[in-house]
Amino acid sequence: MSKAALAVLINGGTDNWSPQRWKERFTSVCEDRQVALLPGDACRPEDIGYAAVWKPTPGALAAFPNLKAVFNLGAGVDALIADKTLPNVPIVRVAIGDLTGRMTEYVVMHVLMHHRQQPYLSQSQQNKIWAPRHQWAASEISVGVMGLGTLGRDAADVLKRLGFRVAGWSASPKSLPGIECFSGQTGLKQFLARTNILVCLLPLTPDTRHILNRSVFSQLDRNSPLGAPVLINAGRGGLQNEADILSCLDDGTLGAASLDVFESEPLPAQSLFWSHPKVILSPHNAADTDPTEISAYVASQIEQFEAGRPLDNVVDLTRGY
Amino acid sequence: MSKAALAVLINGGTDNWSPQRWKERFTSVCEDRQVALLPGDACRPEDIGYAAVWKPTPGALAAFPNLKAVFNLGAGVDALIADKTLPNVPIVRVAIGDLTGRMTEYVVMHVLMHHRQQPYLSQSQQNKIWAPRHQWAASEISVGVMGLGTLGRDAADVLKRLGFRVAGWSASPKSLPGIECFSGQTGLKQFLARTNILVCLLPLTPDTRHILNRSVFSQLDRNSPLGAPVLINAGRGGLQNEADILSCLDDGTLGAASLDVFESEPLPAQSLFWSHPKVILSPHNAADTDPTEISAYVASQIEQFEAGRPLDNVVDLTRGY
Repeated sequence: MSKAALAVLINGGTDNWSPQRWKERFTSVCEDRQVALLPGDACRPEDIGYAAVWKPTPGALAAFPNLKAVFNLGAGVDALIADKTLPNVPIVRVAIGDLTGRMTEYVVMHVLMHHRQQPYLSQSQQNKIWAPRHQWAASEISVGVMGLGTLGRDAADVLKRLGFRVAGWSASPKSLPGIECFSGQTGLKQFLARTNILVCLLPLTPDTRHILNRSVFSQLDRNSPLGAPVLINAGRGGLQNEADILSCLDDGTLGAASLDVFESEPLPAQSLFWSHPKVILSPHNAADTDPTEISAYVASQIEQFEAGRPLDNVVDLTRGY
Repeated sequence: MSKAALAVLINGGTDNWSPQRWKERFTSVCEDRQVALLPGDACRPEDIGYAAVWKPTPGALAAFPNLKAVFNLGAGVDALIADKTLPNVPIVRVAIGDLTGRMTEYVVMHVLMHHRQQPYLSQSQQNKIWAPRHQWAASEISVGVMGLGTLGRDAADVLKRLGFRVAGWSASPKSLPGIECFSGQTGLKQFLARTNILVCLLPLTPDTRHILNRSVFSQLDRNSPLGAPVLINAGRGGLQNEADILSCLDDGTLGAASLDVFESEPLPAQSLFWSHPKVILSPHNAADTDPTEISAYVASQIEQFEAGRPLDNVVDLTRGY
């Protein structure tokens, strides 16, 4: 009896996410297992036992009667679980070391760029002006990390090592060594009132949709050398109320923002974010996944599962992440 | 008998280094000791027991017959010890925790900006182009730190925590946990041959002047996802051969450079560095010192010295740092 086949379903592609490239990588690590890139490759739906997906077309997975598990090739599963026809099988959220390290790089770099006035320095270079400004210490800045899963904890740890005052907020109570932790609605008020740079790494759920809004921004602390507070969102675009971000940047409620994610991606050409002088944006590449590492991880998870051992990082559908 | 007075001699000033501001801070921490800002304030040269200085005019310190110690308000003492009329008293190099943390911030931010292709992303934003490029992992990049004193060791430690392959080089052999250490001329060749991002935090001495030159750059490793290697100099301007840096950037020997220091400061308006597309420059503010913290430190050092205890961080004139 041949092994159950692996279907690869990828939508939205950059050079790093090219469907063909993913198929090649999975083929190279699944020696005697059929790998089918869909739509396109010839294969019988009943042969498919596993699916490796990124934003699959809603309904596509319902076509496989013998599906045993789905591997989501990134940390965000919100688009996937919004599909009402999704078969009732375990969904594995790929969150491996490499992804965590990349997100920490993004968060640390953007916190430092705002803290160290890099937009001002870059402008000064462009204008050929040698004009150092007073630079405050990291210990004068309070960074608040929303979301204390694997990603948030790692970023908080490095920020603390750099000397920032770091606190975290999560929906349910957490405890981290050396990091002041807040939770729930009461905790949120206290957390915001002590935060100068707000870093958002929350999952997108019905409870967190548009959590980054004017009400939240206006509760942030303004009594730091930065003056107006700064927003850094590397979670999901759906977490942010984009009209509120723009108006808060314009009226000074926010001093600056680093945005890696947007409600609509790719970000439309007419978006005001592109040319906003207080915005540093990037094309959802904060924590891009490495196809080589991910495909090897998925192949080893399948082998583990077929040997009767449990899958890692299975999504809890009641929580939504 | 009144306490020996403290003379404050400051040249070159930004808002953070304003002589008047320094005088105010020293006055506030030296309760019953006269503080004289020179030139200007009335005081008798023989009353001066201590001097807190930044780039004092050569010969100025020779005017104080009863000088007991000099406090240099920054890490670099090269300009000070080049003064042949400098009285033979201990020179204290201010290198406190705050300075180290600031330098680590600068190094980590610039390594991350090159590693994460921030100049490309910034250009893409300006052109309103959503075009994520492949982003490699930190573990694919070898960072080499030249200079393994307090500053170099701390920066190396955080870079390692972020996942970079980190090695260090110093004139005399050093050993650091988890960091491959090279030293001397033979070690330099091996160190350069494995380095993709070269971070320079060396002191400026006759041996290190112009150590950042074409011969060194051409020995760096080019087999990383970055392609051409990157230079980051936050040591002293005299460490770099600026004509070599420009020609190496232009012919591709170097892929990019972050420069915080220059042979002539402020950087002259006609310098080609200002508008070079591969250069990220800053106005010698990588590790600016905090007047409040520094002045308190100097005052406590003086009290300690007068109580018969040794001074901290005394410069070794035979080494030159």
